[in-house]
Amino acid sequence: MKIHILGCYAATPRTFTNPTSQVLELKNQHFLIDCGEGTQVQLRKQKIKFSRINHIFISHLHGDHFYGLIGLISTFTLLNRENDLHVYGPVGIKEIILLQLKISNSYTGYNLYFHELSSTESEIIFEDEKVQVKTIPLKHRVYTNGYLFKEKNVKRKLNLEVIERYKIDTCYYQKIQFGGDVTLEDGRTIPNAELSFEPDYEKSYAFCSDTVYNEDILPIIKDVDVLYHESTFLETEAHLAEKTMHTTAKQAAQIAKNANVKNLIMGHYSTRYGNIDLFKEEAGTIFENIHLADDGKSFEF
Amino acid sequence: MKIHILGCYAATPRTFTNPTSQVLELKNQHFLIDCGEGTQVQLRKQKIKFSRINHIFISHLHGDHFYGLIGLISTFTLLNRENDLHVYGPVGIKEIILLQLKISNSYTGYNLYFHELSSTESEIIFEDEKVQVKTIPLKHRVYTNGYLFKEKNVKRKLNLEVIERYKIDTCYYQKIQFGGDVTLEDGRTIPNAELSFEPDYEKSYAFCSDTVYNEDILPIIKDVDVLYHESTFLETEAHLAEKTMHTTAKQAAQIAKNANVKNLIMGHYSTRYGNIDLFKEEAGTIFENIHLADDGKSFEF
Repeated sequence: MKIHILGCYAATPRTFTNPTSQVLELKNQHFLIDCGEGTQVQLRKQKIKFSRINHIFISHLHGDHFYGLIGLISTFTLLNRENDLHVYGPVGIKEIILLQLKISNSYTGYNLYFHELSSTESEIIFEDEKVQVKTIPLKHRVYTNGYLFKEKNVKRKLNLEVIERYKIDTCYYQKIQFGGDVTLEDGRTIPNAELSFEPDYEKSYAFCSDTVYNEDILPIIKDVDVLYHESTFLETEAHLAEKTMHTTAKQAAQIAKNANVKNLIMGHYSTRYGNIDLFKEEAGTIFENIHLADDGKSFEF
Repeated sequence: MKIHILGCYAATPRTFTNPTSQVLELKNQHFLIDCGEGTQVQLRKQKIKFSRINHIFISHLHGDHFYGLIGLISTFTLLNRENDLHVYGPVGIKEIILLQLKISNSYTGYNLYFHELSSTESEIIFEDEKVQVKTIPLKHRVYTNGYLFKEKNVKRKLNLEVIERYKIDTCYYQKIQFGGDVTLEDGRTIPNAELSFEPDYEKSYAFCSDTVYNEDILPIIKDVDVLYHESTFLETEAHLAEKTMHTTAKQAAQIAKNANVKNLIMGHYSTRYGNIDLFKEEAGTIFENIHLADDGKSFEF
């Protein structure tokens, strides 16, 4: 699992800081999460192939999280993209993108699918044989979701009790793990569902930005390997965090601790602070495994 | 007159090249022309004060000319802008911007005026005591305008024939130039309109991008001090210029020559060419005073 931080600063793009966008590499797939202005240039700078991106997840419709989307969608057309592109985000995203394509008379040369979200309950929005993605309902000034990505183990778990009861030889174990049925010597066929359980999940990644401190998300993100949680402010500006519905560094660490996550990546820093190490110092009093996001930085777990 | 090139490359923003945007400084006013993605970062890099920009002119609604506008408008709000902002551009621009502000629940804290254009005839769209701006109807794949900026001389021209007939002393000349009437010794008051003519224009700047080679614009841009004309391709790609409704370097020079302009700035280069000097070489066979635009470059005339 790799996380490429394209941008991790709040509000406006500046000379040396970019608004939110990141690429999650999971099971050889690239998932783009949020797409602030300038995302396509950040993708080029980090040498991430545009063609690898087939799924884009937008947390909410504040500009610093999606103003780069229309440009990326247009650039895909100029690059002669053929693969389908799926965009997940709040209701409204489809109208915004399609209006701009319509008025500029430049529809995409590939299939563009919108999956608009409006539920305030966590829901599965993407699933294939390798990865599952669920929403994490967040609390912000507009409708917002975080996203929970889970790697699936491709191998099903053996139900050893049943397997032994049928006296099935170990040479069939791999077949069962990959979903196969087994025919016994007496001619009976035992369906795979009887011989195995659903596969375990492997690595998991939770992206939570933007949000106030919200313990409602704890059951959803419990025990994840990596939590990216916004920490726009330090505790000295806790009043601003409350007013603007953002989180302080200390609060982000508290969420990480209460959810028993293995690693916390902090980001979405306000540009008022000259030194992002201050976020780690403050959060470090609550939680140990802290990583500071920064534009251009990649993490591997 | 100063021209700051924020971006002058065609199509998508890349690591080292930006889509179209430029700031024209005329009579101590800043006019922003086009606003591709990343324009606000380019403004910061060139240290142009955001608060100086009160008028934005969009040529057409292809993404590389306006995708940065919504971000700039949002940033103005975050910077607590109070001055009115005027946006001039094709019909549709208002709907695109307002939809995004509405859905993100983030209206501007300042007055935002849209001046939507649909005429195919040249028209005056802005005028104050110092500057006049007219459209230059262009031919491209969508409705497109160039813009002609003319500095007005604040001083009216003396009608010396009439002034001498009334035997008016030279000490009144300045008063007449600034619009004053003159009372003669015999008590008669001579209105200024009788004593002076409309002021001459001083410097003029014509921005023409994107367009095919189009001689219809010659009467409008005749004799301008500086013409910025797109030159997306070289003659070797003339077939692409025709197909995509763009201009070659040679054609841009031909327009400059036929319009008898004093200086030609070339830009809107396709990124397929490694070396923009090739544009000057090709155009130089037709026209002499050629300047090559490049991102971050400023010109003073």
